[in-house]
Amino acid sequence: MKFEHVRHKPPTELTKDRALLIAISPLRSNVNLSTIFRTAGCCGVKEIIATGNVKLVNKIARDGAEHVTLTVKNSLPPVLKKLKQEGYTLVGLEQTTHSTRLADYAFLKKTALVIGSEREGLSDDCLIQLDAVVEIPVWGMPFSYNVATATSMALYEYCRQYPAG
Amino acid sequence: MKFEHVRHKPPTELTKDRALLIAISPLRSNVNLSTIFRTAGCCGVKEIIATGNVKLVNKIARDGAEHVTLTVKNSLPPVLKKLKQEGYTLVGLEQTTHSTRLADYAFLKKTALVIGSEREGLSDDCLIQLDAVVEIPVWGMPFSYNVATATSMALYEYCRQYPAG
Repeated sequence: MKFEHVRHKPPTELTKDRALLIAISPLRSNVNLSTIFRTAGCCGVKEIIATGNVKLVNKIARDGAEHVTLTVKNSLPPVLKKLKQEGYTLVGLEQTTHSTRLADYAFLKKTALVIGSEREGLSDDCLIQLDAVVEIPVWGMPFSYNVATATSMALYEYCRQYPAG
Repeated sequence: MKFEHVRHKPPTELTKDRALLIAISPLRSNVNLSTIFRTAGCCGVKEIIATGNVKLVNKIARDGAEHVTLTVKNSLPPVLKKLKQEGYTLVGLEQTTHSTRLADYAFLKKTALVIGSEREGLSDDCLIQLDAVVEIPVWGMPFSYNVATATSMALYEYCRQYPAG
């Protein structure tokens, strides 16, 4: 048979640590946060900065809960200011004026992907600090992706552009 | 301010209906199935063929539950045979021998994306019928994406290749 299962295939080696960091607005759902952790772990992301009432669901985050460093902060705007000072390009995931289609956006390697909350998205205090905003097109109802789904698409696109780290 | 929220932005128009269909092995979790429905709805997918003990969670599937036709079948292999006869290219999402990296795979427009179950993936009865298998690289623990996450990445990649349908 041509296609045979290859379970536990060794992961792709990164030539260097991922320079991608994820910074997340307060989420209503720790399921969404935990889903993001699992995906981030698979993508080799080293750190997530989360805000709000953070509690990882280990059954969902799986090994991501151990392999991705969780840093909890009270509020995102001061975090973004510091990341900017550390040389991160701040890229929001949102539908805004002057946003770029995710697939058309060339990520800089040292990027902080900035995620909004489920209903309100990114606050103005965050938006004003961003270097770029990427958006994912929608073609049908309900016209908005779940936050963990959108984040996974953005992680996929970043990794597509930097398959070796 | 440069980046201002554009909520309820009109969706991207498709010049024709999506020729992408999703066929899903029995899933343990109707949360995963419902998450796939929401994403499929956003991507303009018209139909999902699901198998097993199917029950959509409307709160998760959102409008996807109404806008994506759900067809329930007992078993996937006969479905794949029929889809093949109807001219669909059958593309599995799995880690197998002879699989192609998702980002390197040029989708044919009329494609059935074939999704495996959470633990066992695609059965041999399905694998043997596939025209191609795409896989998404992993770079870190837990070395496997959640099934709804992987499906969303595959939908993103297909839509990236066919932004107008």
